[in-house]
Amino acid sequence: MVDYFHSRILLQPSEVPKEWVNILPDLPAPMTPLVNPMDGKPAPPEMAFQIFPKECVMQEVSQDPTIPIPNELREIFARTYRPSPLHRALGLEKSLGIEGDDIQIYYKNESFSPTGSHKPNTAIAQAYYAKKQGLEELVTETGAGQWGSGLSYGCSLFGIKCIVYMVRASFNQKPGRKILMRSYDGEVHASPSRFTESGKMFLEKDSEHPGSLGIAISEAVEHSMRSDKARYALGSVVNFVLLHQTIVGQEAKIQMDKVGVKPDIIIGCMGGGSNFSGLMIPFVRDKLHGKLPDVEIIGVEPRACPSVCKGQYLWDYGDSAMKGPIVKMHTLGHTFVPSPIHAGGLRYHGIAPIVSILYNNKIIDTVMHHQTEVIEAGLKFANTEGILPAPETAHAVKEAMDQALKAKENNEKKVILFNFSGHGYFDLLAYKEYMTGDLKDYELPMEEVQKALSSPEMPNIDESKF
Amino acid sequence: MVDYFHSRILLQPSEVPKEWVNILPDLPAPMTPLVNPMDGKPAPPEMAFQIFPKECVMQEVSQDPTIPIPNELREIFARTYRPSPLHRALGLEKSLGIEGDDIQIYYKNESFSPTGSHKPNTAIAQAYYAKKQGLEELVTETGAGQWGSGLSYGCSLFGIKCIVYMVRASFNQKPGRKILMRSYDGEVHASPSRFTESGKMFLEKDSEHPGSLGIAISEAVEHSMRSDKARYALGSVVNFVLLHQTIVGQEAKIQMDKVGVKPDIIIGCMGGGSNFSGLMIPFVRDKLHGKLPDVEIIGVEPRACPSVCKGQYLWDYGDSAMKGPIVKMHTLGHTFVPSPIHAGGLRYHGIAPIVSILYNNKIIDTVMHHQTEVIEAGLKFANTEGILPAPETAHAVKEAMDQALKAKENNEKKVILFNFSGHGYFDLLAYKEYMTGDLKDYELPMEEVQKALSSPEMPNIDESKF
Repeated sequence: MVDYFHSRILLQPSEVPKEWVNILPDLPAPMTPLVNPMDGKPAPPEMAFQIFPKECVMQEVSQDPTIPIPNELREIFARTYRPSPLHRALGLEKSLGIEGDDIQIYYKNESFSPTGSHKPNTAIAQAYYAKKQGLEELVTETGAGQWGSGLSYGCSLFGIKCIVYMVRASFNQKPGRKILMRSYDGEVHASPSRFTESGKMFLEKDSEHPGSLGIAISEAVEHSMRSDKARYALGSVVNFVLLHQTIVGQEAKIQMDKVGVKPDIIIGCMGGGSNFSGLMIPFVRDKLHGKLPDVEIIGVEPRACPSVCKGQYLWDYGDSAMKGPIVKMHTLGHTFVPSPIHAGGLRYHGIAPIVSILYNNKIIDTVMHHQTEVIEAGLKFANTEGILPAPETAHAVKEAMDQALKAKENNEKKVILFNFSGHGYFDLLAYKEYMTGDLKDYELPMEEVQKALSSPEMPNIDESKF
Repeated sequence: MVDYFHSRILLQPSEVPKEWVNILPDLPAPMTPLVNPMDGKPAPPEMAFQIFPKECVMQEVSQDPTIPIPNELREIFARTYRPSPLHRALGLEKSLGIEGDDIQIYYKNESFSPTGSHKPNTAIAQAYYAKKQGLEELVTETGAGQWGSGLSYGCSLFGIKCIVYMVRASFNQKPGRKILMRSYDGEVHASPSRFTESGKMFLEKDSEHPGSLGIAISEAVEHSMRSDKARYALGSVVNFVLLHQTIVGQEAKIQMDKVGVKPDIIIGCMGGGSNFSGLMIPFVRDKLHGKLPDVEIIGVEPRACPSVCKGQYLWDYGDSAMKGPIVKMHTLGHTFVPSPIHAGGLRYHGIAPIVSILYNNKIIDTVMHHQTEVIEAGLKFANTEGILPAPETAHAVKEAMDQALKAKENNEKKVILFNFSGHGYFDLLAYKEYMTGDLKDYELPMEEVQKALSSPEMPNIDESKF
């Protein structure tokens, strides 16, 4: 019989995990380096130190299986929002006609952080390391604003100045996110801006330029290079960001142990790959070490931007402006401009290299969904579990529902766990369009992928020369 | 020394309180009845049964010192969001120059409910009792949308249809709240509407009528009267709503006991009085029974609508449309139209009768603040504690800060507890206006109060004929 008093599993603040899980030493293929776009060779650490906080660079290449979470950081998590709750989705299960304990759906609720998503998990860590190093500013870009809000919040905890270049189209359309960032004393500029040379260049071409993530990255990197006391901050893709997010999976393991279940299926939505990886990496270690051999791990992509499902494993620029390092990953090509789906956080042409390697080695799998079915699933979730998911998160909800229904049809026992990466209270337009019948689906044609991947702008990297 | 790992006090879902605190038997003056506007006499229960769910009416007049929370309801709280966390506001304290444990600020965090405020505490209870009675619909009005969202959510848990009449001006200005209500399958109508006779009457006068809370109440009550299976739901003011909110104070008591402190000062913002009462009532019982004799209890009002600070204790209509019952309370007069401050939930001309009686007997006190200083306090809170308060909630934040600074100046030891009733993620305009210097203050002149209270529309009730 279902016990409602133990269906939401809370850990005490004192139970904040003491270590992050570094999956690098377990990877079935060697980690590929970040490549310097200037000479096509692996970027030396000294170069990376000029871009990111030093400790983050060290973590990026560390081969230690675990990395201690500094106690000061654990204290901050403890007094603010971690550990996050793990919920059994009893309302959702019931609405799918699932009763009893044969099929169980759990979600790790990252929507209870102050900015409403998993982003502060790494934002606070990056701000902490920046402070420790004596830095005074972190500069970043943001599209829809989840990452910009998270970093502004993280910086506010340490008195670090946060500067955010926000894609102008979003800057104008999402005043809420902008106000939230400013309430944390974040300095938000519409990008392209007149504060950088790159920004000015684009504004000269078009004084009302709507901007792009690529341009915003260029501006943020340029801005961060100006001062010895400033660095650039990233919200996904690179190893150290995924590392910081593993606190999510670490907690989930303790929580599932408390109710005595193990996941058969683990699900997360994928943009750059950080929330998905944060949940799955600690379980991947168990899978690789034979402790959880049969666990299925599924990353969910939008059909409009399926970097892994339809992309190729290639060397490519992480940013559209070709300023940042070149990485080996599944990519749709950095010149590819995804359709304007509402899940802005999933509109990224590439994926974290760690995710690519795990996919290549069949340790994880990926699926795609259309935004209409995703938003429909999000509404079902709100209606049964109370929280309206971010459009990104709704991708994971949709897949969890599909997996539960498949298990029901096949009379299988399955424990499904997914990452509820954030709420949608700042992103309601997708739901409104669904309700009014205005929501459109976009299926990315393979020809478009081929075109982007054969662009002359794709880098030409010769690994034999590394 | 401050222990960060024990500064956020979480109870387990199994610790959801088992009873609500009914303060009626402890009141130092007899509770005044709801009066029938048709004959000026106390409304008999049979009349109230036609308006509210039966069990709620029974609770409204119960003299039992505690009322058990049904186990099915406790299960729902447990699996969704209760108990809510109690936080020590260490970031806020630090920003006020307060160190050590002499002055401690705690807040009960009601912003983590699915709809972001304390409203579901009674919404879920009302929907539960409606379901138990075999009702099929609950109808209500909403201004800014907090209550409408809460009730839509509550109803979704029991498959009860929720119909919300939303003041047209808000309906047009706050699309987010409307989408949230619809995501819980709430049926939202802009009021005045063509669905009721009252609505049509106002639309005939002005087809673009912006609406008012008074009109929306009339429409909701009229709509609920149409069917034997429908009732009207209220989000504040009446005794049973305050009763349901006492779960907040019940939890806070357990949580403060866990860290071994007792509050010297308890603070809440007051619109109709429900979040304030929910926190303070269990402590009021202790105060009246000599267990906490010196605790100061402070309700915070906006200077633009200070129902207790500047109103009079009189018989008055609860609604501007004079359809609902007449109650004895502190009031600015039901014809009074408050200035359009952002704290929409505090723009109510009256106050809960229970609050009035406690105030008359000097058991609680009240203060007023301007919205500019309140929003400034809200920003300080976001910047130090991470959560951006609703404009209503920011009133309590401001008073807590003032009390802490006063204690610091006087070298006093004080434990301050306030109700963080909700987040402001759907109400960012106030913060935007503050940032751009466009936020205005309104001080209500006494002449205006006199004028509203001497209106010929004020009811003339002769208590000697009861």
